[in-house]
Amino acid sequence: MTSCLGYGAREAYGALAPMHFERRALRPDDVAIDIAFCGVCHSDAHQVNNDWNNTAYPCVPGHEITGHVTAVGPEVTRFKVGDRVAVGCLVDSCLHCGPCGDGEEQLCEQGPTATYNGRDRQTGETTLGGYADHIVVREPFVLRVPDSLDPLCAAPLLCAGITVWNPLRRYEVGTGTKIAVIGLGGLGHLAVKLGVALGAKVTVITTSPGKVDDALKLGAHHVLLSSDVKAMQGAANAFDFILDTIPQRHNTNPYLMLLGRNGKLVVVGAIDLLEPVHGGLLIRNNRTLAGSLIGGVRATQELLDFCAEHRVLPECERVEMGAINEAFARMQKNDVKYRFVIDMETLREAAAR
Amino acid sequence: MTSCLGYGAREAYGALAPMHFERRALRPDDVAIDIAFCGVCHSDAHQVNNDWNNTAYPCVPGHEITGHVTAVGPEVTRFKVGDRVAVGCLVDSCLHCGPCGDGEEQLCEQGPTATYNGRDRQTGETTLGGYADHIVVREPFVLRVPDSLDPLCAAPLLCAGITVWNPLRRYEVGTGTKIAVIGLGGLGHLAVKLGVALGAKVTVITTSPGKVDDALKLGAHHVLLSSDVKAMQGAANAFDFILDTIPQRHNTNPYLMLLGRNGKLVVVGAIDLLEPVHGGLLIRNNRTLAGSLIGGVRATQELLDFCAEHRVLPECERVEMGAINEAFARMQKNDVKYRFVIDMETLREAAAR
Repeated sequence: MTSCLGYGAREAYGALAPMHFERRALRPDDVAIDIAFCGVCHSDAHQVNNDWNNTAYPCVPGHEITGHVTAVGPEVTRFKVGDRVAVGCLVDSCLHCGPCGDGEEQLCEQGPTATYNGRDRQTGETTLGGYADHIVVREPFVLRVPDSLDPLCAAPLLCAGITVWNPLRRYEVGTGTKIAVIGLGGLGHLAVKLGVALGAKVTVITTSPGKVDDALKLGAHHVLLSSDVKAMQGAANAFDFILDTIPQRHNTNPYLMLLGRNGKLVVVGAIDLLEPVHGGLLIRNNRTLAGSLIGGVRATQELLDFCAEHRVLPECERVEMGAINEAFARMQKNDVKYRFVIDMETLREAAAR
Repeated sequence: MTSCLGYGAREAYGALAPMHFERRALRPDDVAIDIAFCGVCHSDAHQVNNDWNNTAYPCVPGHEITGHVTAVGPEVTRFKVGDRVAVGCLVDSCLHCGPCGDGEEQLCEQGPTATYNGRDRQTGETTLGGYADHIVVREPFVLRVPDSLDPLCAAPLLCAGITVWNPLRRYEVGTGTKIAVIGLGGLGHLAVKLGVALGAKVTVITTSPGKVDDALKLGAHHVLLSSDVKAMQGAANAFDFILDTIPQRHNTNPYLMLLGRNGKLVVVGAIDLLEPVHGGLLIRNNRTLAGSLIGGVRATQELLDFCAEHRVLPECERVEMGAINEAFARMQKNDVKYRFVIDMETLREAAAR
């Protein structure tokens, strides 16, 4: 066991504060990682605030982790001390079921082990995440960060990035595909950049005229204001694929209408009831409304490699560990372009205040 | 122009009655067809009753047509007098757009011409359907009925059949695929037979304990009562593909829960608002809710050939033309196992009464 310094919550809506806890001693296939950066995800705030009624306290969030290896168990073969690595939303799964065999560990039939607020498969203890100086993770769930990838900006790829990458790949978005991205937040802005890098024609759909310039700056080819009824009608049947990052209940029908033949609208944010979908809209044009949940280890590594090769990185704002509560508050007001990343260099100093 | 005897409606909720009208003189690529049988589809009643607010009267329904060729235009190459043929929901389309090029004429970008209540692409006249002694159809929309296929029972394949066949094929239902069929009417019973013939493991989901025996008789391997909460929970994540033939507003969430990883639920009947779908249900397991609209000419011919080869035919009840209004009333009470087919031999006698 090693002593770990982190930031966590002891109760719902309690401010995050420094805390000391133990990381497990290395098992044979474990990798110990010093955390350099950790992205701040909406899920972190939801979990800390027990929005899903399943939070075990204390809760140390964080699943967009980059850092380097400091020790490895005797059975570890793919990593050595000093390697640049990353950890995403998962730290374990059964590794035997169909989904795991297909590299879709996030859909493990026995349930994957989440990086925080999960349950360790051997001890049953609650997992504690990446708002911490180090973490211990089973080798199959450790990712390699290519040398050319900035470890601060790479962090949000581990959750926001894979959440949008997986449907882009699954639905074969590529050269010439006409796609739209609804919402220009942490997920949406990455979908724009990745879509452009994949060769797609990318339209951003937004309610905010103020985001038009931002969208174009990120590389979008067009912007569609969802409040502009004429423009929306003009875009009927126009898209092959729409990524819907809206994180709450909403009406998908105005977007379904924009899908052409066999078009797909993929929801990645709204884990709530959607407004009633019109069956006739689905039937006409053979349209699809689908959901998509993060992605597996293989796809996440593919994303990191793609981003290194194509020089695609999220837009990040570095925050100090001591400012995490302000960052949560700003994130919940969408006052971030486009993702906060905690610099763990600032952890020890913040804890000492 | 040739004089045609048919059965049609002159106003909404007016009983169907004999009427005389003209069929066009053969254009160079036209085929004239003596109608032997015509299936009775729910759409026929909806259109006759103006349920979709778009009916032009008089309205002669019918788009599940089988018969034989009596004359061909000079440019017709694939058919000759005497050939056994069929006509489905479409009698024309632009034949130039992307969907038409891909054999998805039902999704023609300029709008296909429906077999009845459509608009002739040359004259703009309302098309009149298969409740008639003959019909004139452009060659690319005429299908061939294999010799071994009974022309009475083949008729429902032209709409009910292709409506379920297209999604079965598109989503690659085959040997070992675990599928469920919701609803055991005209569409559902055909989906069961076709699913079994494709090698799938087929479960029927029904609200009616009285339909269990029927489902098994049709070849279903299992029956799941949707009212049996325990059984429904036990079937969570169990299916790769679910065909939902429910023809009105309903709650799809209890069925979405039954889909395993990357599973698809395809709605073919409900052209209305569905109850709110839970986004989290879609996201977990990467589930899909899709719609599907009939099918193109190529797929319909494939279906006819498949049914001949695999000896799959709908269960049909022969009705006389003079009993069509009673048949409509029974159909709307679901009092049919499983599809009415009008025998056009009885048309002249009914009209003479």
